[in-house]
Amino acid sequence: MKALVLTGTKQMEIQDLDTPTPKPDEVLVKTAYAGICGTDDALYNGLPGSADAVPPIVLGHENSGVVEAVGANVTQFKKGDRVAVDPNIYYPKDKYFRVDRPQLAEDLSAVGVTRDGGLEEYFTAPESVVYHVPANLSLKAACSTEPVSCGVHGVRRLNLQPHYKALVMGDGYMGLLFVELLKAYGVQHVDLTGRHDDKLAEEQKLTGADHVINTESGDITEEYDIVIEAVGRPETQEKAIEVAGKGGQILMFGVGRPDQTFTVNTYEVFQKELDIKGSFINPYSFDDSLALMASGKIDVEPLIKNVLQLNEVVGKLDGSDKRPGKSVVELDGSLK
Amino acid sequence: MKALVLTGTKQMEIQDLDTPTPKPDEVLVKTAYAGICGTDDALYNGLPGSADAVPPIVLGHENSGVVEAVGANVTQFKKGDRVAVDPNIYYPKDKYFRVDRPQLAEDLSAVGVTRDGGLEEYFTAPESVVYHVPANLSLKAACSTEPVSCGVHGVRRLNLQPHYKALVMGDGYMGLLFVELLKAYGVQHVDLTGRHDDKLAEEQKLTGADHVINTESGDITEEYDIVIEAVGRPETQEKAIEVAGKGGQILMFGVGRPDQTFTVNTYEVFQKELDIKGSFINPYSFDDSLALMASGKIDVEPLIKNVLQLNEVVGKLDGSDKRPGKSVVELDGSLK
Amino acid sequence: MKALVLTGTKQMEIQDLDTPTPKPDEVLVKTAYAGICGTDDALYNGLPGSADAVPPIVLGHENSGVVEAVGANVTQFKKGDRVAVDPNIYYPKDKYFRVDRPQLAEDLSAVGVTRDGGLEEYFTAPESVVYHVPANLSLKAACSTEPVSCGVHGVRRLNLQPHYKALVMGDGYMGLLFVELLKAYGVQHVDLTGRHDDKLAEEQKLTGADHVINTESGDITEEYDIVIEAVGRPETQEKAIEVAGKGGQILMFGVGRPDQTFTVNTYEVFQKELDIKGSFINPYSFDDSLALMASGKIDVEPLIKNVLQLNEVVGKLDGSDKRPGKSVVELDGSLK
Amino acid sequence: MKALVLTGTKQMEIQDLDTPTPKPDEVLVKTAYAGICGTDDALYNGLPGSADAVPPIVLGHENSGVVEAVGANVTQFKKGDRVAVDPNIYYPKDKYFRVDRPQLAEDLSAVGVTRDGGLEEYFTAPESVVYHVPANLSLKAACSTEPVSCGVHGVRRLNLQPHYKALVMGDGYMGLLFVELLKAYGVQHVDLTGRHDDKLAEEQKLTGADHVINTESGDITEEYDIVIEAVGRPETQEKAIEVAGKGGQILMFGVGRPDQTFTVNTYEVFQKELDIKGSFINPYSFDDSLALMASGKIDVEPLIKNVLQLNEVVGKLDGSDKRPGKSVVELDGSLK
Ligand SMILES: NC(=O)c1ccc[n+]([C@@H]2O[C@H](COP(=O)([O-])OP(=O)(O)OC[C@H]3O[C@@H](n4cnc5c(N)ncnc54)[C@H](OP(=O)(O)O)[C@@H]3O)[C@@H](O)[C@H]2O)c1
Ligand SMILES: NC(=O)c1ccc[n+]([C@@H]2O[C@H](COP(=O)([O-])OP(=O)(O)OC[C@H]3O[C@@H](n4cnc5c(N)ncnc54)[C@H](OP(=O)(O)O)[C@@H]3O)[C@@H](O)[C@H]2O)c1
Ligand SMILES: NC(=O)c1ccc[n+]([C@@H]2O[C@H](COP(=O)([O-])OP(=O)(O)OC[C@H]3O[C@@H](n4cnc5c(N)ncnc54)[C@H](OP(=O)(O)O)[C@@H]3O)[C@@H](O)[C@H]2O)c1
Ligand SMILES: NC(=O)c1ccc[n+]([C@@H]2O[C@H](COP(=O)([O-])OP(=O)(O)OC[C@H]3O[C@@H](n4cnc5c(N)ncnc54)[C@H](OP(=O)(O)O)[C@@H]3O)[C@@H](O)[C@H]2O)c1
Ligand SMILES: [Zn+2]
Ligand SMILES: [Zn+2]
Ligand SMILES: [Zn+2]
Ligand SMILES: [Zn+2]
Repeated sequence: MKALVLTGTKQMEIQDLDTPTPKPDEVLVKTAYAGICGTDDALYNGLPGSADAVPPIVLGHENSGVVEAVGANVTQFKKGDRVAVDPNIYYPKDKYFRVDRPQLAEDLSAVGVTRDGGLEEYFTAPESVVYHVPANLSLKAACSTEPVSCGVHGVRRLNLQPHYKALVMGDGYMGLLFVELLKAYGVQHVDLTGRHDDKLAEEQKLTGADHVINTESGDITEEYDIVIEAVGRPETQEKAIEVAGKGGQILMFGVGRPDQTFTVNTYEVFQKELDIKGSFINPYSFDDSLALMASGKIDVEPLIKNVLQLNEVVGKLDGSDKRPGKSVVELDGSLK
Repeated sequence: MKALVLTGTKQMEIQDLDTPTPKPDEVLVKTAYAGICGTDDALYNGLPGSADAVPPIVLGHENSGVVEAVGANVTQFKKGDRVAVDPNIYYPKDKYFRVDRPQLAEDLSAVGVTRDGGLEEYFTAPESVVYHVPANLSLKAACSTEPVSCGVHGVRRLNLQPHYKALVMGDGYMGLLFVELLKAYGVQHVDLTGRHDDKLAEEQKLTGADHVINTESGDITEEYDIVIEAVGRPETQEKAIEVAGKGGQILMFGVGRPDQTFTVNTYEVFQKELDIKGSFINPYSFDDSLALMASGKIDVEPLIKNVLQLNEVVGKLDGSDKRPGKSVVELDGSLK
Repeated sequence: MKALVLTGTKQMEIQDLDTPTPKPDEVLVKTAYAGICGTDDALYNGLPGSADAVPPIVLGHENSGVVEAVGANVTQFKKGDRVAVDPNIYYPKDKYFRVDRPQLAEDLSAVGVTRDGGLEEYFTAPESVVYHVPANLSLKAACSTEPVSCGVHGVRRLNLQPHYKALVMGDGYMGLLFVELLKAYGVQHVDLTGRHDDKLAEEQKLTGADHVINTESGDITEEYDIVIEAVGRPETQEKAIEVAGKGGQILMFGVGRPDQTFTVNTYEVFQKELDIKGSFINPYSFDDSLALMASGKIDVEPLIKNVLQLNEVVGKLDGSDKRPGKSVVELDGSLK
Repeated sequence: MKALVLTGTKQMEIQDLDTPTPKPDEVLVKTAYAGICGTDDALYNGLPGSADAVPPIVLGHENSGVVEAVGANVTQFKKGDRVAVDPNIYYPKDKYFRVDRPQLAEDLSAVGVTRDGGLEEYFTAPESVVYHVPANLSLKAACSTEPVSCGVHGVRRLNLQPHYKALVMGDGYMGLLFVELLKAYGVQHVDLTGRHDDKLAEEQKLTGADHVINTESGDITEEYDIVIEAVGRPETQEKAIEVAGKGGQILMFGVGRPDQTFTVNTYEVFQKELDIKGSFINPYSFDDSLALMASGKIDVEPLIKNVLQLNEVVGKLDGSDKRPGKSVVELDGSLK
């Protein structure tokens, strides 16, 4: 089978590999779509994602497909089932797992990060991380169950009330998903910031954001109960704290480089009684994501702007392909 | 009656004022003890506490005493009742009040801050902020119901589990109360930092801290699930984030000067999935504080080091009296 | 002014009363609409609602209108403001109030229950329970802010997740509001039970219920994570527990007669690890309700079936007017 | 090795079995102590516990011991380690597991229920359910980590505040543990009911219960914020609801026979806004239990009244041994 192999830092090549055989607890998936995100960027460049990738390895942690074969112990899947795969494999024996925070384990194993993922025609995953895709959800959309789940985990860390005013900073894929998620979880007023008027105008239509604010040309003039930072830069992180009102909750979702810092005013933390929160990957959230996507509340297809072939992936990762918007790789477009 | 009046910035004098008359909804309290804390420092120096104090005014927001008289509408108190008074008076018509966060109101009114407090022989307060002191709790202890309540509000903002390891940074009065509070709320391992070996040794005995760490001479070598910063300086705030482990919750309880900042590493917030939280005063917490003090779980008397007379207060506030430890002013020591 | 006065058990008459004068903290409201619900039924028949009504008194606890005059201390309202009024007036000095559960107070005071309400041309209420109606929300809809708020309080008592399956039992006004509320709070699958096919068919269109089940002719065949009982009869209460699945949460929202009971199987409570919860009135929920109604997520107008005049109210309360659906009384239809 | 084998309903015999060999992910434990509880009663009599036991099988789900050998994949244990074992083995592929409620799985596997447990000299368990016993905790105490954990899971399902008044109904082993647990979690007032004055008097000393109430000779005269039913009979279940005050939370911890019911008054559920909750086994709670036992907050040794030999177990299960109090079986008393 055809596989895009990361062979070293900034080195990838298409190779012909043997189709893997599922172990007793594993499912073999024929890949339909694999999404590409900043994590792949990081891994391509030799930086850590949620964990480190050790070449040679096949990336692709946002996957959908169809079951091709199952191991002997698999009970819930059979050949032909349409599935999405949660990349993160938790260990029941890990100390954090045993206190209900599995995502904090020291050594996470993940499909497309520490074991071969979806940038190849077939990949395997333990049955425990495979999910049925609802009939009315396309496999093209379903490969985004993972990023939607990261958003679900993030919003779950907040206390949300319908009367709250929320601001999402950053109109990348995650920012747009957060606008839809906050609305889906009952927040009635959600604004969005970005840096390009035309892009923001289209995004407002797609997501239902109440107001869009171009922070290059205008100011954020209101105070917010909820601020989700989805850029990952000091200037937006500091602005996030500044525009949070009394009782404000700030989700620092964007991830900076390991050496990057932002500055906080203590008196503000005290007097506004702020909550500043990190969010790490997506435990226990695939069922919610699939339900939200199947009902249409989270509608990812219009946000997927580039459908790539395997040989176009390197261009995305090395930055030579500058087309904006979410990219997914079509491994087998005949799978719907 | 005798009253210590703040007449201007850094100006206080003992005056002879008329004993106040309670309004229909008010209680007149004969003051037994009034505690002194950093808020009084700030107000004496013309800086804001939870609100601004406008001279001439009588400070004293940590009060206990005995009911002297009650207004016509008062139903739950009568002359002779032993009471503690919550300084903060919330407004049912405030917008934050109506969404269950009364402490965030723009214009807080507070006994000893915006209206005359306990540094005088008699003071008034609305019945709604007056509490009965349990029989087995001394009035000397009961004047600390307010600081204990600030601690209760702080720990309530945390998710506490018995197996968590907690660190309290700063061995001032609030730091010591936090050690006792964390234990009372079920956390089995609580360490404390300070800067003086002998003081720490005594504090360990009084509070039951598991380990005490002198950060002048030694390092914090472990990771903590809970870190309470109770100093208010950038170096301890940054250290608090550094020593928080995965899933760590940091309560930024200490308050810095309005222009003071600390620096946070974004990747750490993400990868440890931190919670950094402010805490503002003490809503809905007097009943819990009184229950904890009455049972002895929170034992403030041994922590009260200085019992002052009214004429000794200025020495504390202008820094000329350098005796360490919590100070309370005895207005009428015959009240027990 | 014209007022419908409850003069005794099952006795009401339209009288000409003096227009009330607002006290310093009160607002005088020119009534636009006043909703009628089961509470009014109970009070008309001499039974308690959330509290007892002592004749002579003017009922009407679901009110909207326009400010006619304000007392001297009122700061947030002026003549002409469009308002909705929360009937329940909490007491800061009540023991439950002081531990953040104001609705549990022994002696609740309520507009339209213990003091004159909206079934008259003008009524007064303390500023603290008056709310501005958003510009895009009609006063006809706004008189339902109170029942929506009871629903908001109910759903807040539940832990809701998007992937949960919910069932609302009973297609009265509250049941229909619950379908919309669960959807608005992110639950993606909500079913509804009733007893009439045609009514259910219309209600499904209005509320977006996923399935409607006529329990007279069919069975509830699935298990639910969330069951909201909104009828108040033993048979539906027992069915609610039966159809709850593992981990199920049952909101016993419907209220029976004081002597009415239902039966629970202990082993089921244990083995399904159930939560069975009551819900009492609507603390801290008007802001959320107004936000949800203003955004259209909760759309009450199509559910209001009967617009009555003051002289038609008795017919509703004594049961002679059998028209189904929610009724509101139009006091001044020129107010929009 | 010697093993007490359940060979059929109400049939047990001591047999000589082969010492088991641990699988790659398993730990072989030399049993020190195995506790006996109502679950063993049920299984002996052919009734279900948390799951069904299919003879021939060795019971014993409350176990402590010393590691004798480890499988090839085991990383956290070595021969000689002192351990306690959580009987319940959750499945990452179960649908409830994937939404963070592993205990609700349809087919639970459990040491001492569905696979051989501690009533034999050696037993195996997956590494994921084995825990290190802190140095200062005896193996005799540690065999109660499981019942303590059931209590921890129960109290976690409640919202506990220090000022709450709690009542524990039933002075069996679980009832006594609940008194200690409520205190450890910060509740300052905890009462206990039983049926024998002398037993209650001793239990008050051991647990620190504030009041003990003999319900055979006296009445429960107060209202409680928290009521934990730990008997499992209709009369105590109904009394639990009756003595709950406004806002009361009732943990229905006691388990009745599958056909047993209790009766609830709806108006009471509404007007007191009650929470009635079940509690099922002990997910994610061993770390908390071990921390609480190691610190001495939960002190089980004085509550363990009978130390049995293997040949005395049947007498306990068939009811011929009527000695009251908790029983543990000493498999190897030389292990401390
Ligand atoms: N916590 C987690 O578990 C988790 C999971 C996934 C992603 N993340 C992080 O979340 C962040 C967003 O992810 P993503 O996939 O959406 O990345 P992305 O596509 O790179 O989006 C970032 C967006 O921010 C915009 N932006 C840059 N500067 C801005 C500013 N000053 N104001 C507003 N917008 C600005 C950029 O648009 P222009 O350049 O066109 O203006 C870009 O579209 C990243 O930092 C990522 O690492 C975290
Ligand atoms: N959030 C709220 O609602 C609220 C309410 C009350 C108080 N506070 C704040 O909480 C903080 C503590 O209050 P407090 O009354 O306990 O004040 P305090 O008595 O001044 O205590 C601060 C203590 O920190 C110690 N300290 C200084 N530097 C330290 C370091 N590097 N490491 C460890 N300890 C250090 C000081 O002791 P030495 O100088 O002897 O070393 C001092 O005892 C203050 O910032 C106060 O403003 C907040
Ligand atoms: N907890 C609170 O704070 C609070 C607040 C408001 C109301 N409530 C209570 O909530 C309940 C509902 O209020 P509501 O205003 O919606 O009352 P409602 O209009 O009387 O609605 C009850 C509905 O239940 C239907 N019904 C009767 N038997 C049924 C059955 N076996 N299965 C399904 N539906 C059945 C009735 O319809 P048909 O007769 O046409 O079939 C009726 O439409 C009442 O018990 C009320 O007292 C509680
Ligand atoms: N939910 C769970 O996960 C879980 C886990 C473990 C146990 N349980 C259940 O919890 C309950 C208690 O367990 P346990 O091990 O403590 O059982 P136990 O030892 O049998 O204790 C029950 C106690 O209740 C006492 N009692 C009987 N009638 C009473 C009454 N009317 N008032 C007060 N006390 C009365 C009995 O004492 P006298 O007969 O001497 O009066 C007995 O000591 C059982 O129903 C058990 O099945 C549930
Ligand atoms: Zn990704
Ligand atoms: Zn103070
Ligand atoms: Zn009503
Ligand atoms: Zn047991």
